[in-house]
Amino acid sequence: MRKLIVGVMGGGEGASPEVCEMAYKLGGLIAQQGWILLNGGWGVGVMEASARGAKEHNGLTVGILPDRHKDLASPYIDIPIVTGMGDGRNIINVLSSDIVVALPGRSGTISEIALALKNGKKVILLNFPLTDIFVEYQKAGIMVLVHKPEEVIAKIKELYQLENDEKDE
Amino acid sequence: MRKLIVGVMGGGEGASPEVCEMAYKLGGLIAQQGWILLNGGWGVGVMEASARGAKEHNGLTVGILPDRHKDLASPYIDIPIVTGMGDGRNIINVLSSDIVVALPGRSGTISEIALALKNGKKVILLNFPLTDIFVEYQKAGIMVLVHKPEEVIAKIKELYQLENDEKDE
Amino acid sequence: MRKLIVGVMGGGEGASPEVCEMAYKLGGLIAQQGWILLNGGWGVGVMEASARGAKEHNGLTVGILPDRHKDLASPYIDIPIVTGMGDGRNIINVLSSDIVVALPGRSGTISEIALALKNGKKVILLNFPLTDIFVEYQKAGIMVLVHKPEEVIAKIKELYQLENDEKDE
Amino acid sequence: MRKLIVGVMGGGEGASPEVCEMAYKLGGLIAQQGWILLNGGWGVGVMEASARGAKEHNGLTVGILPDRHKDLASPYIDIPIVTGMGDGRNIINVLSSDIVVALPGRSGTISEIALALKNGKKVILLNFPLTDIFVEYQKAGIMVLVHKPEEVIAKIKELYQLENDEKDE
Repeated sequence: MRKLIVGVMGGGEGASPEVCEMAYKLGGLIAQQGWILLNGGWGVGVMEASARGAKEHNGLTVGILPDRHKDLASPYIDIPIVTGMGDGRNIINVLSSDIVVALPGRSGTISEIALALKNGKKVILLNFPLTDIFVEYQKAGIMVLVHKPEEVIAKIKELYQLENDEKDE
Repeated sequence: MRKLIVGVMGGGEGASPEVCEMAYKLGGLIAQQGWILLNGGWGVGVMEASARGAKEHNGLTVGILPDRHKDLASPYIDIPIVTGMGDGRNIINVLSSDIVVALPGRSGTISEIALALKNGKKVILLNFPLTDIFVEYQKAGIMVLVHKPEEVIAKIKELYQLENDEKDE
Repeated sequence: MRKLIVGVMGGGEGASPEVCEMAYKLGGLIAQQGWILLNGGWGVGVMEASARGAKEHNGLTVGILPDRHKDLASPYIDIPIVTGMGDGRNIINVLSSDIVVALPGRSGTISEIALALKNGKKVILLNFPLTDIFVEYQKAGIMVLVHKPEEVIAKIKELYQLENDEKDE
Repeated sequence: MRKLIVGVMGGGEGASPEVCEMAYKLGGLIAQQGWILLNGGWGVGVMEASARGAKEHNGLTVGILPDRHKDLASPYIDIPIVTGMGDGRNIINVLSSDIVVALPGRSGTISEIALALKNGKKVILLNFPLTDIFVEYQKAGIMVLVHKPEEVIAKIKELYQLENDEKDE
């Protein structure tokens, strides 16, 4: 059985301290579940914070880099995938993720959410209220909005029917 | 001097007759200006209608296809570019366009608008009111919302300072 | 009926004057047939020479650029396709070509020949004797080696059964 | 310190039992060094054999898939990267590898060797004598030909100056 790969998207250099703190916490929780964290790989913003969170909780991290080299990869990325494709790599981020979590970001993050939804990936918005623009996907249960990192974990388990009470069976 | 390349994005199979009519008209106007029309290349929705509009007004049309062959290209596409990259081709659509026009669409179209804005391309929304989500770009004058195909042409000329009164000089 | 798109690959900055002269001639012959010339788009080597040959004979030229902008496009390229994908664009060069012609080059050109053959494209080698390494494709008639630009044109017609005597039917 | 990523390329369905045996052995040796194995991800040929070798020796394996899903991934791949880019993913294989090893293959493998050399990656040919076509790279010491899996490991250590006698210093 392969480990679940959770994609974490969100703002880069412009991400606020609060958003980065949430990303750090989420990264840690993902690692504690034994899941793999995947993000855009750079050493800034949500990418850096989520990777650091995962590594400080013994997780495994994959970064899909836009560059033609790995010089800009976060030190918390174990496996830098070097695409050399700029934002063309955004589709790889979402296709490689079993589920996509999006924290507040700008146009890059929105492009990833849109590509994820278009390609049938489930999207969990963490404090990023884009429900108006993607309302049809929310109604269809493909996209949900939550407010705390812990809720993301619960939602992933629910979506993948990794029920907490499995151990009771 | 190279001809201006105008990218026209918008809904595929789900596009309404009204949106397709608008796309057809826009394609014709782009051709009449001597500009090149670029779109996603398929024979459906805004892609088909805009290409048909351009060809019926002696324009030149380029389609950036997601497939690994050109079987699905619209017959109104002169130059099918075959990427084999699925939605990874969306970045090519916007980078290859001197300016991007977006008609109503769903997640695919939104991903192209987001990628365009992220990569510094000017975006004209034609009856696709996404101003809330991308408000910062609207305020910066990088994204505008208009309501008629004729306004798109005027806006492009304004943005590129192809003034109508050039002939008077 | 769409025009045939002929991909012309070959050396960049390191291409010899003789190779560039051959590329220039080939570009002109392609244009005279009413075919579209497609290459890697830069203003150096075989790319520049073949595009110049085509433009000086009223042809139409398409360049698939590796960069995220078109600053490096040859002035003889009518339609620069901006991929931002580095050598990831090589697959687009070959998939978009109805037939691939390869002049002498180095590893970039060899990668394009290999990708073309892998994807079922016919390849005409113009004075680039790679027949040892790809011998199986040569035996299967998918790859041929010729020595003059005029032979390339004849070979394309033969391969596409665009027989000169069609007009007699 | 990140672990070294070794890319292993080579034939798919057409790979001979001897080549697959060699790939299996190489995968095991890479894992025993604590290095990460990266390949094209499918469950056939050199990809399957090298991944199986690594997993049966407690290694970590990454597969860069051409498809838009992971259905065809080898069960021995821990981390499937889903590109949806067909052979456009070959550039990602080589850019993501710290060093590229190529076993006998056909046009797909040759395209990867060519792309690796073009992008400055060192290439170790394992019983795949392409030295004629890439002779300039061999002379420059960028490409070497060896004949046994053990020699690949020694060569990688030499190239990265991971000398066995480091401990004596």
